[in-house]
Amino acid sequence: MPGPLTLGEIASRLGGRLLGGAGVLIEQIGSLEHAGPRQIAFFSGPRYRAQLAATRAGAVVVPPAAAQQTKLPRIVSDNPYAYFARVSQLLNPAPLPEAGVHAAAQVDATARVAASARVEAGAVVGAGAELGERAWVGAGSFVGDGVSIGADTRLYPMVTVYAACRLGARVIVHAGAVIGADGFGMAGEDGRWIKLPHVGRVLIGDDVEIGANTTIDRGTVDDTVIEEGVKLDNQIQIGHNCRIGAHTAPADHCVGVAGSAVIGRHCTVGGAAVILGHLTLCDDVHVSAGTVISRSIRKPGTYTGMFPFDDNASWARNTALVRHLAELAERVGALEKPARKQRKARNG
Amino acid sequence: MPGPLTLGEIASRLGGRLLGGAGVLIEQIGSLEHAGPRQIAFFSGPRYRAQLAATRAGAVVVPPAAAQQTKLPRIVSDNPYAYFARVSQLLNPAPLPEAGVHAAAQVDATARVAASARVEAGAVVGAGAELGERAWVGAGSFVGDGVSIGADTRLYPMVTVYAACRLGARVIVHAGAVIGADGFGMAGEDGRWIKLPHVGRVLIGDDVEIGANTTIDRGTVDDTVIEEGVKLDNQIQIGHNCRIGAHTAPADHCVGVAGSAVIGRHCTVGGAAVILGHLTLCDDVHVSAGTVISRSIRKPGTYTGMFPFDDNASWARNTALVRHLAELAERVGALEKPARKQRKARNG
Amino acid sequence: MPGPLTLGEIASRLGGRLLGGAGVLIEQIGSLEHAGPRQIAFFSGPRYRAQLAATRAGAVVVPPAAAQQTKLPRIVSDNPYAYFARVSQLLNPAPLPEAGVHAAAQVDATARVAASARVEAGAVVGAGAELGERAWVGAGSFVGDGVSIGADTRLYPMVTVYAACRLGARVIVHAGAVIGADGFGMAGEDGRWIKLPHVGRVLIGDDVEIGANTTIDRGTVDDTVIEEGVKLDNQIQIGHNCRIGAHTAPADHCVGVAGSAVIGRHCTVGGAAVILGHLTLCDDVHVSAGTVISRSIRKPGTYTGMFPFDDNASWARNTALVRHLAELAERVGALEKPARKQRKARNG
Repeated sequence: MPGPLTLGEIASRLGGRLLGGAGVLIEQIGSLEHAGPRQIAFFSGPRYRAQLAATRAGAVVVPPAAAQQTKLPRIVSDNPYAYFARVSQLLNPAPLPEAGVHAAAQVDATARVAASARVEAGAVVGAGAELGERAWVGAGSFVGDGVSIGADTRLYPMVTVYAACRLGARVIVHAGAVIGADGFGMAGEDGRWIKLPHVGRVLIGDDVEIGANTTIDRGTVDDTVIEEGVKLDNQIQIGHNCRIGAHTAPADHCVGVAGSAVIGRHCTVGGAAVILGHLTLCDDVHVSAGTVISRSIRKPGTYTGMFPFDDNASWARNTALVRHLAELAERVGALEKPARKQRKARNG
Repeated sequence: MPGPLTLGEIASRLGGRLLGGAGVLIEQIGSLEHAGPRQIAFFSGPRYRAQLAATRAGAVVVPPAAAQQTKLPRIVSDNPYAYFARVSQLLNPAPLPEAGVHAAAQVDATARVAASARVEAGAVVGAGAELGERAWVGAGSFVGDGVSIGADTRLYPMVTVYAACRLGARVIVHAGAVIGADGFGMAGEDGRWIKLPHVGRVLIGDDVEIGANTTIDRGTVDDTVIEEGVKLDNQIQIGHNCRIGAHTAPADHCVGVAGSAVIGRHCTVGGAAVILGHLTLCDDVHVSAGTVISRSIRKPGTYTGMFPFDDNASWARNTALVRHLAELAERVGALEKPARKQRKARNG
Repeated sequence: MPGPLTLGEIASRLGGRLLGGAGVLIEQIGSLEHAGPRQIAFFSGPRYRAQLAATRAGAVVVPPAAAQQTKLPRIVSDNPYAYFARVSQLLNPAPLPEAGVHAAAQVDATARVAASARVEAGAVVGAGAELGERAWVGAGSFVGDGVSIGADTRLYPMVTVYAACRLGARVIVHAGAVIGADGFGMAGEDGRWIKLPHVGRVLIGDDVEIGANTTIDRGTVDDTVIEEGVKLDNQIQIGHNCRIGAHTAPADHCVGVAGSAVIGRHCTVGGAAVILGHLTLCDDVHVSAGTVISRSIRKPGTYTGMFPFDDNASWARNTALVRHLAELAERVGALEKPARKQRKARNG
């Protein structure tokens, strides 16, 4: 942990307009609700006005519109959440790995491991694998033959990277993630499934973050590609041959992207959404939570397909009718027919 | 395995009304369908009457209403399933760990490990971590720096607990679970995502059970809290800053609870349900399977939002109309207009 | 990697009708889009005609209907995808394990390990476990007490198999899968959950493939059974006591099969579908992606329950009406009443 910073030091490093309290010492970030006098919180909008009034935080980050809504020492920023993230990075820098290969790790003699890299106890690094400067392989993680791990990339414990996959620089992979397993490629023949060996790889760009227990399958023939800056939450599944565009964030959790889907840049995907196979989503598409995307999307925008919940009795009553919508529409059509005839008669 | 018990011994230890067969020897629990003469089964209700008639079980647990529906030796209980669970616990007590740290485990010199605790091969226990009496760390599991594991808590193999998290007593964590990974906290700025370091922890109360490959993220600023007695099935995702109330059971599987949600006590959540972020569910809320909860719920009850399935052709016909419901409603409105006019004319 | 084969050698081993280029050397499979002159691609149908015209592949596999749609050396097959899979198996045979137990693995003295089996670094094999001929236990994997692993079965790294489970021959289990954890069996009593010890096992037949981070729970009393030839994708959850029929493929990902469900043979289940507990699906049932199956299905066919997505504004407008469908139906009924009366009056 670095020492505390004054509010003035923070503002001089990160910018923003400082109002009062340049000398206030800040040790850590905090929430409006629970922060103490040595913590800095952030105020995102009207919903939290009561919390802002009651907070015991030493300072807050506020948007311009709220610059005068508190007398606390404050920093005014156009993007308070991003500013708050940067303050937190300042106060909580990612630790540098202590260099070295643990005695209880297994590193193949043909692997090339940078002197500044770290391989923890129980980890296994395969033949011909490469670990860049300050690469960090967590306890028990598995790096397959021929895998390449870029500089400053961290694998938390229990990560599996299958053979020949490539991770860029500054990638973070959380525990339990599996990169490069065979995709679900099977050909049916005579009521049996014939496995398609997967000869493609997984290629992961710089600055990607991969959540706990997320799985990314290798390509069947060509590669599965995750471009730079993509953020994947926990328990996401990316099928074989997918391409996820730069800075896209399938967020929340449990999102599934089936095989051979292509997702554009700067997209977001809400929790538990599913994107079916062989579809293309253009740039700047936002998929809401709980939505199944079953056709390609060629126009930026927000798309939703979440079934509305209700108390169980109302749901049962309304939902039974979903199964009879076609009949209902026909009944309405039948009612319209005489009305149309009457209109015709009147007009004719 | 403990020796067999007579039905009389079982009834004297667990209560219930014994009808016949006090001397019958019971070695194990069984199902009505497959149990043999040394097994005890349970009968839950009319749906299984044929199985009750045909069973070769040595004894059964039955509800009062069914006390006379079999001539087998039986124990009558108001809650036969709970009684059956207790019989099973009697016959299948959780094994006590053999104390000791395996030679192939890595335990930091500053960790405090109770003499009665067990650390299996390949496990790693970090600096300053604490393992309580009879705590059991399975093969290959990872216990981060400063983690606290309560008495009689068992981590199965391949569990990851990130630094500083705290688990209470008698907690069970199944293989592949990940506790304390960073949540999906990212601030967007100029088309890029800025990571928010997560300084909160995960706090897990006593008597919690966590399923295989379930993930529970640490808090962004404050802690993620799982209160006592909560049961989480496999592959559940609990986002950062969530609080799950005591004795609540997000059940079945694949349930997702997004960031900063607060779920009350004694709730249940069906399989594949999703609770979106920043929502509050009061106590005694029951969410059906496949439901996306998109608003806070302040009234106890059962809530459902599962889209009804149908044969594919019927589904296609009806579902196409869902996309035109607004038009259908307008058409109905148009039909009502002349009817309303006529009524008015008649009445006026 | 085996040496390259001529197209003639491929056709003589696998059948199919060869048109031209018997001497063309093939080193690897490829996609129409990216294959080079030493790669063979496959053409599945009209959608890819432009790619077929432009491909630089050395040869292609085509269906009879497309036999004359290219002048490239080609093999005509009734099932080009299955043929392509077999070519890939020929060119990319699964590697045989190098026999032996790694010095950093822990194998119990009472385990029976075939001389041709392989146990990698960090793996743990419990008391009384059995590993068949050429069985392959990946780095860090855990094989519990009394587990049986059949011949030619491969566990990738980080797989957990709980005690007493049985895997057949030629099974593939990808990283992070958990086989045999306790199911979600809990009896409620006085607002608390009583755990039901799980005494059943998981039995897995021959030629099954299990995806990364998939979980299969052991039976409560009887066994959970996965019959031969079943293919499970990544992150699938199979609850306690389930039975999945032979050659069924719950595909894509994130599929959940709740406890005690019975699924027939030759079924498929789309991504993110859910099959609720205690249901039965007959043979040859196909469940579409995103569908929740809430009743048993006794008739082969395709079943769907995916809510249609739309742009967010249209969705909001239409979905609000789903909550008022019952009222809409009543309004239509009210409109029909006078029409019915008029008809009656006319006819009467």
